[in-house]
Parts: sequence; structure tokens; C-alpha cells
Amino acid sequence: MGCVQSFRELCDRQKNTNVRKSLPAVCIVWQTAMIILFGVFIRYNEEADTHWVEHRHTKNISSDIENDFYYRYPSFQDVHVMIFVGFGFLMTFLKRYSFGAVGFNFLIAAFGLQWALLMQGWFHSLDYTDGKIKIGVENMINADFCVAGCLIAYGAVLGKVSAVQLLVMTLFGVTLFAVEEYIILNVIHARDAGGSMVIHTFGAYYGLSISWMLYRPNLDQSDRLHGSVYHSDVFAMIGTLFLWMFWPSFNSAITDHGDGQHRAAINTYLALAATVLTTVAISSLFQKHGKLDMVHIQNATLAGGVAVGTAAEFMLMPYGALIVGFCCGIISTLGYVYLSPFMEKYLKIQDTCGIHNLHAMPGVIGGIVGAITAASATESVYGVEGLINTFDFKEDFKDMVPSRQGGHQAAGLCVALCFAVGGGIAVGCILRLPIWGDPADDNCFDDETYWEVPDEEEDVPPILHYNNHMRNKDVAESNFSVEQSAR
Amino acid sequence: MGCVQSFRELCDRQKNTNVRKSLPAVCIVWQTAMIILFGVFIRYNEEADTHWVEHRHTKNISSDIENDFYYRYPSFQDVHVMIFVGFGFLMTFLKRYSFGAVGFNFLIAAFGLQWALLMQGWFHSLDYTDGKIKIGVENMINADFCVAGCLIAYGAVLGKVSAVQLLVMTLFGVTLFAVEEYIILNVIHARDAGGSMVIHTFGAYYGLSISWMLYRPNLDQSDRLHGSVYHSDVFAMIGTLFLWMFWPSFNSAITDHGDGQHRAAINTYLALAATVLTTVAISSLFQKHGKLDMVHIQNATLAGGVAVGTAAEFMLMPYGALIVGFCCGIISTLGYVYLSPFMEKYLKIQDTCGIHNLHAMPGVIGGIVGAITAASATESVYGVEGLINTFDFKEDFKDMVPSRQGGHQAAGLCVALCFAVGGGIAVGCILRLPIWGDPADDNCFDDETYWEVPDEEEDVPPILHYNNHMRNKDVAESNFSVEQSAR
Amino acid sequence: MGCVQSFRELCDRQKNTNVRKSLPAVCIVWQTAMIILFGVFIRYNEEADTHWVEHRHTKNISSDIENDFYYRYPSFQDVHVMIFVGFGFLMTFLKRYSFGAVGFNFLIAAFGLQWALLMQGWFHSLDYTDGKIKIGVENMINADFCVAGCLIAYGAVLGKVSAVQLLVMTLFGVTLFAVEEYIILNVIHARDAGGSMVIHTFGAYYGLSISWMLYRPNLDQSDRLHGSVYHSDVFAMIGTLFLWMFWPSFNSAITDHGDGQHRAAINTYLALAATVLTTVAISSLFQKHGKLDMVHIQNATLAGGVAVGTAAEFMLMPYGALIVGFCCGIISTLGYVYLSPFMEKYLKIQDTCGIHNLHAMPGVIGGIVGAITAASATESVYGVEGLINTFDFKEDFKDMVPSRQGGHQAAGLCVALCFAVGGGIAVGCILRLPIWGDPADDNCFDDETYWEVPDEEEDVPPILHYNNHMRNKDVAESNFSVEQSAR
Repeated sequence: MGCVQSFRELCDRQKNTNVRKSLPAVCIVWQTAMIILFGVFIRYNEEADTHWVEHRHTKNISSDIENDFYYRYPSFQDVHVMIFVGFGFLMTFLKRYSFGAVGFNFLIAAFGLQWALLMQGWFHSLDYTDGKIKIGVENMINADFCVAGCLIAYGAVLGKVSAVQLLVMTLFGVTLFAVEEYIILNVIHARDAGGSMVIHTFGAYYGLSISWMLYRPNLDQSDRLHGSVYHSDVFAMIGTLFLWMFWPSFNSAITDHGDGQHRAAINTYLALAATVLTTVAISSLFQKHGKLDMVHIQNATLAGGVAVGTAAEFMLMPYGALIVGFCCGIISTLGYVYLSPFMEKYLKIQDTCGIHNLHAMPGVIGGIVGAITAASATESVYGVEGLINTFDFKEDFKDMVPSRQGGHQAAGLCVALCFAVGGGIAVGCILRLPIWGDPADDNCFDDETYWEVPDEEEDVPPILHYNNHMRNKDVAESNFSVEQSAR
Repeated sequence: MGCVQSFRELCDRQKNTNVRKSLPAVCIVWQTAMIILFGVFIRYNEEADTHWVEHRHTKNISSDIENDFYYRYPSFQDVHVMIFVGFGFLMTFLKRYSFGAVGFNFLIAAFGLQWALLMQGWFHSLDYTDGKIKIGVENMINADFCVAGCLIAYGAVLGKVSAVQLLVMTLFGVTLFAVEEYIILNVIHARDAGGSMVIHTFGAYYGLSISWMLYRPNLDQSDRLHGSVYHSDVFAMIGTLFLWMFWPSFNSAITDHGDGQHRAAINTYLALAATVLTTVAISSLFQKHGKLDMVHIQNATLAGGVAVGTAAEFMLMPYGALIVGFCCGIISTLGYVYLSPFMEKYLKIQDTCGIHNLHAMPGVIGGIVGAITAASATESVYGVEGLINTFDFKEDFKDMVPSRQGGHQAAGLCVALCFAVGGGIAVGCILRLPIWGDPADDNCFDDETYWEVPDEEEDVPPILHYNNHMRNKDVAESNFSVEQSAR
Repeated sequence: MGCVQSFRELCDRQKNTNVRKSLPAVCIVWQTAMIILFGVFIRYNEEADTHWVEHRHTKNISSDIENDFYYRYPSFQDVHVMIFVGFGFLMTFLKRYSFGAVGFNFLIAAFGLQWALLMQGWFHSLDYTDGKIKIGVENMINADFCVAGCLIAYGAVLGKVSAVQLLVMTLFGVTLFAVEEYIILNVIHARDAGGSMVIHTFGAYYGLSISWMLYRPNLDQSDRLHGSVYHSDVFAMIGTLFLWMFWPSFNSAITDHGDGQHRAAINTYLALAATVLTTVAISSLFQKHGKLDMVHIQNATLAGGVAVGTAAEFMLMPYGALIVGFCCGIISTLGYVYLSPFMEKYLKIQDTCGIHNLHAMPGVIGGIVGAITAASATESVYGVEGLINTFDFKEDFKDMVPSRQGGHQAAGLCVALCFAVGGGIAVGCILRLPIWGDPADDNCFDDETYWEVPDEEEDVPPILHYNNHMRNKDVAESNFSVEQSAR
């Protein structure tokens, strides 16, 4: 801790938020690198290539509708909406950071998905005959999933970092994600359809570790901007609802064709419904006069979708999904009430969006639920073929049994945690360097720093506007200094 | 009427809007009940179960793409968006009730869909071999449909009831809906793909009856909040557009595979397009200077989708759909101009969102259009097989003829009306009891009552902010009392 | 130019923005005409007709899932969202023209799609056996595409025209579009899946030509409203994101079943991702302090989708898509920085939304990229069958070769440009007539002109509200005149 502290002091030089050189440089250079790497490595797979018609004849596929595109594209588009509108708007709740929330979310997702196509491609879609990565709709979904991990991490540092830092965070985040995902899914052979472990646990602890490394003791100097206004809360509900509605597509997007996708959608649909009711209950119970808190409704209502991610494709049963949702709504809301202030005060983790309550805890729960559900799977419930298909007990793993699969699931969860915390601390170290253009402690949560923000004065209706001019004249001198200091 | 009046007086005790006990209690208890009932009754159907692979072999289904999931899931997601974003945001038009609109919509939809899965399941999806309800994607769509009926009813009482009342209203609403739906579709054998009768007529008159029972003679005391502001009107357009765009999916979601879904989507698409033009025409014609009224654009443009619901799957013909849309745009807009004020003044029905114009009248028209279209169906237009498939003239109803089907359709409409008005009055009675935490007449349409609303002061730009402090000091004493009374 | 000038003076009579007669008249009469024309001409095609079941048997189609509905409906819904929410909300960025942006977009799209079904139907879907147009899901997509062209044109004149003018512009726009599309796709046999030429180039130059004809020398009198406020910029991001996310569906909606749709989606997904990074880079580079400009993020990030439209279904290769996106992000953003001010000052083209940068230039680039990609197609890359399928070298064109196809593509681009500029000037002439109710130069970009805009005073929170009343009394007289002059 001592060396961390001294490193911190080393880094706490005067902040300069001008990113006019670094941001364009990073964007152009990295995008150029992507083009070169894509040129060397990435091609269409046989379902997206013009040779599909020959492939169809060879494989005796009866119809174009058997192309994986038609199985997965609707789910892909739903996931795509979750990534860009869902995550983007969920973070617009701050009164003066909506541009940053939506805009930087957009930027890092657009970069991240390209890098993810490469990283995940090397691990999963490399064609050894020609050394090329062959991509199709499933790769696009997985790239979006990978990006989701990084956007979750963004939630922890929202308003406190520059776009350059976010890009660096995404570069390393995607890299770590791809490795961790490969180990969990392929080496350990854990199943994780909706990514409770791979996406949510990893993303959340990665972000929290970074936030811990970037701890700002004087963040209260930005308190005036650290809250919502009425309309920013409504904007955030757009994000919440699109995440909530499309979560069944998220959890079912890459599960098995047929019953796998069908069942995952049903389980997620039910878990999320239960979460809404318990979130409302706890939110009302812990407020004066039973009033509801928008923070809880915007976030904790989604916890059920996170927690049902791993087990969504299993025979969790409808009531099982409801139970998971029920518990997560309670735990997540209590997290917002008690745990977040505690973590900020005692653990020095400043978590702007409360991702610990929305992604970290439900993600871990999801991993555990997945392990238990897998361990208790039986042939009588799944059927002989069903058990093999659901858990992919084939090839190298054809001798696997459910109880051992449960152990592998638990091991997967541990791997996700290790990569997240280890990776987060390392990346956090890098991000503390005083070269990234992050804002000073009294200048956080403010779009003015990185965006041309429109002048609001014209928004005032005519009648007030007139009075402003009257008053402005009277207090002209003092106003000038006030305005200067406030911007 | 005398006894109603005295009952009203009995109920008009001092209002207490603290729901800190009742709301959590209802949420937790009901959600627990759902878990138990789901545990006892609900399982996956054969298309969502791991035995699907065996089922495929047994039934000789050639491919996973034949799973009903791929026929209906894209439509399901569109319907899901209509329920949560569509209805939720459509109601955000009030200046200070956006939290309540989106948030309570979210809550009652999340509860309602669980209860609907059970209620509808008992009537439609009960497997008599093991006494279980077997659910799949079609059940999820039907549950969303059922919830739609309750959310329409919410539109009539928006801003005037507590969350507990809404949950009670939804509990009974879903129950009544399931019974009414069973009678109309199965006993009477009416067809109602888009639910003009089953969903819209029922939902609207249910809500209007409740609103009539909850009449507030002094609601004008809340007039200051009974209107929109610029941005709340833009938010409401999000709801309008998502409802408008996805309505073809709504009306085609549960129609027959193949031509049934295809035709229902086309008819709805056309009817809605025509409605927009006539709505604009009438809105402009009845305003000073020909200015358009946002209330009409937000609501009446949707009337065509409601009215084409029943007949969407029939051979209504493209021009038939346009005619239905044409008429409904006019009628619905005129309803907003003339009928809503009349109903409030003379019939004592306060209809916050004007659901009588958007759902009730177009729903009844839809029922009539459906009856006429069915009655005039011929084998020359439909083809022999087409007629049987479209109207399901099979098994018990294999001797049915179109003209008699028309009569059955009309009977269905009557059943919907009876259930709605009867049920609404009964439920309205219950909701008048002074135990539900509803707001006083001078405190309606205000999020402050049930939500932690962010303090707006910080939103004021720096220059104004300074002046506020100046002024606040001058009028500090009077401000205090003003603020007290306003909250 | 002299005669144009004198015509301009002739037209510059006193403006009267009252459209109470003209708007309802146009809406009702045109909608009635649509009903009559639909009655005479439009029927369901064999996939949407109840005879589908017989058609299936005749054509030996094995399953309902082979109905084109299931190939294209999810894409159709995505395109539908782009048209109504995407274009509509993208234009809400102006501080006081959000109603007009969303509302008029809604109106002209709803009219345009009906007229497009007819116009395109006559050219493409006419059944010569009975003289009827047979429509299905593909016609709905094409109608939406056609409308997109007109909505792009709306972007150039946003805030400066009346609803009646927009309807006239749409009537002629759709007509020109259908003719131009027929010549490009059927006569010249160019391929244009995503409509870089047919939709974007045509739409943009059509709009710019109209805007040139409607040049307003004193538009600076409306400068006070010619900008955004914080929340209007966030609303516009809703439009941006829905356009961006669903663009893969736009470009793949009517491409070949199977690999065609699959490949088009991948290419578009990649091109758009690259555009985001270069847009951010250039935006930051050309602003003081490296701050980002919301105008660029809202618009230029979409240029890649436009430019990849024509070539999306070809074997552009993933890196090819990235290169197109890379270049277009740069060019489009530079357009906003340098070209738009230049065009307004020297070419007298006032382009409210900057469609020249978002649609015109990228559209032309897309046409050129398409021509090059087509010309360089080889059998080794495409396969023998693949080449024939992709470029439709069948029937009359079975002797076509790629290099000649490239020439045809270029010819298609020229046709689009000619129709756009020629048609735009002609329609602009008509729209200058002083009968359409357009606003005066000092009254543009203002919803007050055509909409009942809610009074904002009530929006002020209680504490301020009180003070307003205090102040209002003091300055009551002067307020009155201020308010009068401001409206």
C-alpha cells in the first residue's frame, strides 16, 4: 500500500484536460492499425461469403433460412441496442454529463468491437488452413458482448476520466476479456450463455479495481454536479428500459438453436419481472415516506437479468428464474442503500453508477446459480440427448458429468474474478499516469471539459429572459467572476 | 346513484400518501405468491424444453428453425418494447409525472405479465396429463397483450392513484381479461388477432369505469401540473413512435404462420399511415391559426392500429385498411376536441390520457369492422383452405359459415364491453376505500408524492444561480412556507 | 440567374403562416386519393394472401418459414425505426423545433410510404395478368427506403418550410425517386442494396437544390433559435444511435437471402464502427482545446453507413468496409467544419442539418466505391455461382461482365445526380410560390409558428415560481409588450 500511495502522489500533478493532440492521435493510429490487422486476418465465414451457395450444396442444407443469420440476427440487433442505447442512456442520469455518457460510450464501443473481433477471433474463429479469422453474425454478437464488459467498467469511472483513458481501458479490457473468456469457456469448459461471469463479474470488478486505483479524495468538490435533474432521470430510463426489454435477447443470443434460445429467453423474461417488484419494495421501504428512488428503479431492476445469465440456458425452471430475480432485486437495492456509501468511505472505491450493485454482486450470484444448476442436472429432467446438447458433453468432454460440470462452473467464476481484479489494478496503474488528460477533482461530472456545450441562456422563456437582462445589468460585475469560476 | 354517492362520501377521508408499508408488503407478498404458483403450475413447453430434440424426431420436424421461437420472437420483442417504452413514454407528457408514468408502468407491467402467464395458462395452455401449464414464446406475447389492457386502463387514472391501487387494479384487470378472453376466443369463437375487442375495448372501458368511480370533483386544484412542458412532449413522442412503428408486430404477433402474419403486418402498416394524415388534418382544422396540437399527434395517430386489430388477419384489402385508418384518425381527434371535455363535465369521467378517444372508440370500431369483414368473407376471395385457416373453421366449428362468424364477432364485442364496465365499477368500488394511499385532489399529477425528485436548483445556469441566492435571502421566510405547502 | 432572381422577388411577398385551410385540405384530399388508387390497384401478393397455402403446395415450398416475411420482417422493423425515430429525432437538435422535427417527419413519412407503394409498385410489382400491384414485406421496405430519400431532403430545409410545402416536396420526391430508381436498377442494371446512389445521393441533392431555390438572405434574423440546448442535443442522440445501430439492417434489408443479407450486415457494422473513431479524431482536432462538437458526433458518425450502401452486398472484405468508414468519418466531419459555412456564404445553400456532409458526399463516395468494387470482381473471389447471384447476371444481363458492371454503376450515380438536381430545382420553383404558408425569415426554426407550444412558466419549481409572481407584478407592463413581440 505504501508504494501505491507514493505512486499516487507521483501521479497527482496538475491536470491538463486538453486532449486535442492525444485523442485524435489515438483514434487515427488505432483505427489505422485495425484496418491493417483486419486486412491481414479477417474474412467472411462460409455463411456470409458468396460461396455460401456452394457450401449449401456440399452440406446438403435445404434452404437459405438455415443460414445462421436468420437464427441470430434479430437477437444481435437487440444486443446492439443494449450496447449503444441501453448502456449509453443508462449513464445519462447525471445532470451535466449526458454528452459524455452517450458520446464516450459510443466511442469506446465502436473501437472495442473491432478489437474484440480480432482478439476473440484469434481464440475462437481462426481457420488454421489459411490463418484467417472467419467472421459471421455470431462473431458480431460476441464482439458486442465483449464491449459490454468494458462499458460496465466505464460505469464505475463515469465522469472522472478522459476519452483517451477510456480508450486505453477498453484496449486492455478487451484483451483481458478475450483471454479470460477463452480460459473459462474452452479450457475450463464452463457454460456462460449470458455472461454472468465472463461479462458482468469481469467487467464490474475490472472497473471497480480501476476506480480504486484512481481514487479521488477530493471528489466532493464536484458534488454540485454529482446528481441528477428531472429530465436526465427520464433520459436514463430510456437506457434502463431498453436494457430490461432486450435482456432476453442478450442471454439467448448465442445459445443453442431451437430450445436453447427459447428457454434462455423465457428464463430471463421471468427473472427480470420478479426483480422489478422486489426493487420497488426495498426502495420504498428504505426511504422516508416510502418514496421511490429513481437510482434504484434505473439500476436494480436489471439485476435479475445479470444473475440469470449463466443458468438461462439450463433447465432452471420458471420458478427458479423468479427466485433468482426476487433475491437479486433485494440485494442490488440494498447495495445502493448501504454498500455504495460504505465502499466509498472505507474501501476508497468511488463507483459512479453503482456497478457493484448492478453487475458485480448479481454476476457472482449468477455464477453460483449456474454452478448449482449445472451440478444438479439429471438425465430425467434433461433427457439423454438434452443433457449432452445443453452442457456440450462432446468430444474432449464426452465423459463429463453434471456434478463435475458444477465444479468447472465455480472455477470459471474464480478465473473471471482474478482476471478482473488483477487486470484492473494493472490498468489502473497505467491510467494514473498524468498524461491522459483527466479532469481535476473539482471538475468532474462536467461535459464542459470535453464537449462544446450549447449556451443555455436562450432557453429561458421570453418573460424570464427580459428579467435576466434587467438583473444582469444590476449585478454585472459580480456575475462575471461567478461565471468565470463556475466554468 | 344515491348509494354510490354515500359510499363516495364514506371514502373521502383525509388522504395519506405514505405507502411505505403497503407498497413493499404488496410487492413482496404477491411476488412470493407468484413464485409458489409458478413452482406448482408452470413448466416449459416442448419447444423450450431440452426434450425438443426428441420432440423434433417424433414429429418429424426437419430443422430447429421450425421452432415457434423463430416465427414469433422478433414480434415478441417489438410488442415488449410497445408495453414498456411505448405505453411508458406515451404517458410522460405531463410536466411533473414522468417518473410515475414510466416507473409505475414498469411496475404494473412486470407484475401483470406474471399473473397473466398463470391466468391465461390455466385457460389456454394447461396440459391435462400432468396438470401443468406449459409456456413458450406465444404465452409471453399473450401475457404482454394482457398487460396492455391494464396499461390502457392506467391511462385513464394517470396521476390520480397510488402504486398500490395500480397493482390492485392490475390484479383484477388481468383476472377479468383472462376470463373475458377465454369466453370471446374459445367459447364464442370470435377471432381477435390484434385485440381490438379483447385488449383495447376491454382495457379502455375498464379504466374509464374505474375513473368514473374515482371521480374527483376538485381535481382542478391540481391544474397547475395538469399539462405538458416542451421536453415532456418530446419524451411522449418516443412512446408514440415506438407504439406506431411496432403496431404491425402487435397485430401480427399471434396470427397464423405464413400469410397470416404477413397480411396482418401489411394491413396495420397501412391503417396507421392513413391515420396520421387525417389526424393532422383535423388537429389543424380545429385550432386557431391551424396550429397542430401535440396531444392529437401523440395519441390519435395510433387509433388506426387499434381499429384494424381484429380484421388485420382477414382479407381486409389494402384499401380497406386505409379506410379504417382514415376514419379513426378523424373520430379520435374529434374525440379529443369535443368528447373528452364533455365526458369530464357531464359524465364525470376524468380521462387523463384520453383513452376513450385512443382505445375505446377505435376498439369498438375495430370490433365492428371485424364483424363486417368476417361476415362478408367468401370462398372466392379466401380460397377454400384459406377460409378454413383464417377463421379456424375446424373441429367443433367446422360447420361455421362466415355470416354466422360475423355474428359471433359482434357477440364478442358485447362480452368485452360487459366485462369492462362491470369489472371496472366493481374494482373502482374497492379502490375508493381510503386505505390505498392515493393523493388528495390538490396533489395529483405530481411525482413529489411518490418519488424522490431531484432538486432542480443546480440546473439553473451559473448566472441565474447567483441571482437565486440573492433573491432567496430576500424572501427567505415566505419561501419557506411556500415550499412547505408545495411539497 | 437573372430570371431566377426576378422570380424570387415576385415570390417574396408578405408571409402568412396560417395553414388552417391548406393543410387539412391537402391531407384529406391526398389521403382520399390514396384510398381510391389503392382500391383500384393494390392487392396482397401470393405470400400475404390466404391462397399462400395453395401457392406453397404448387411451388413445393416445404414450410411456412420460407415465406419472405421471415427473411425480411425483422429488417423491415429496424428500417421502420430508422425512418420514424432515427430521422425524426436526429432533427430534434434545434432548441425550439423538436415538435416540427419529429412531427413533420412523421407526417411526410406516413404520406410518402403510401405514395411510394403505388409509384414503386407500378414499376416493380405490377401483375400484368390483372393489372394489380401485388405487395408484400419487400414493398414495405422499399416504400420506407423511398421515404428516406424525402426525409433526407427535409434535413436541408428543416425549420424553414411549412408542412404543406413538405407534403408537396414529398409528393414530387417520391415520384422522381421511383422513376430514377427504375432507371438505375432495371434499365441500367446497377446494383444498389443500401441505396448510396438511389436514396442518399438523390435525397441529398434533391434537398440541397430545393434549399438553394428557397435561399433566405435574411435568415440570420432567426439566429437566436438556430442552435441547440443541452437536452435537445441529447434527444438528437436518440436519433443518431437508432440510425447507427440499425443501419446494418437498412443495407441488408433487400439483399439476397442467405449470404447476401449476412455479408451486407457485417460490412455495414464495420464501416460504421470505423467512422466513429475518425469523426471523434477530426472533431477534436479542429476545436479549441480539443473539445468535441455534438453536431459532428450526431451526424458524421453515420457517414460510413451511407458510403458502404452500394458495396455492402459485394465482397468488399471487412478491411474494405473499415477503409470506407475511415475516410467518410474524416470527409464528413471536415465538411461540417469547412464546407457548410462555405456553401452558405458563397453558394447560397442553407443546409440546416448538414445533409451535404452526411448524405451527399458519402452517397457519391458510396456510388464510386460500388463501381470500383463491382469492376474488380472476379470469379476466383466470388465463385462462379456467387458472381452470378451477387450481380444478378441473369436473363437479359447474362452476358454482363464485372468491368462493364462497374461502368453501369457509375452511370447509375450520374442518373441519381441528374434527377436530384433537376427535380430539386423544379420543385424548388414551385415551393417559392407565396401560397404555402412558410415562415418569414425572422420566424424560422420556431415551433410556435405551427404548433400549440405549452407555456413553460409552470415548469419553474415552486420556489422560483413564487419569485416570478413577485417580479411579474413589478414589471407587468413591460412584460406584456416583450411577450407580444417575442411570439
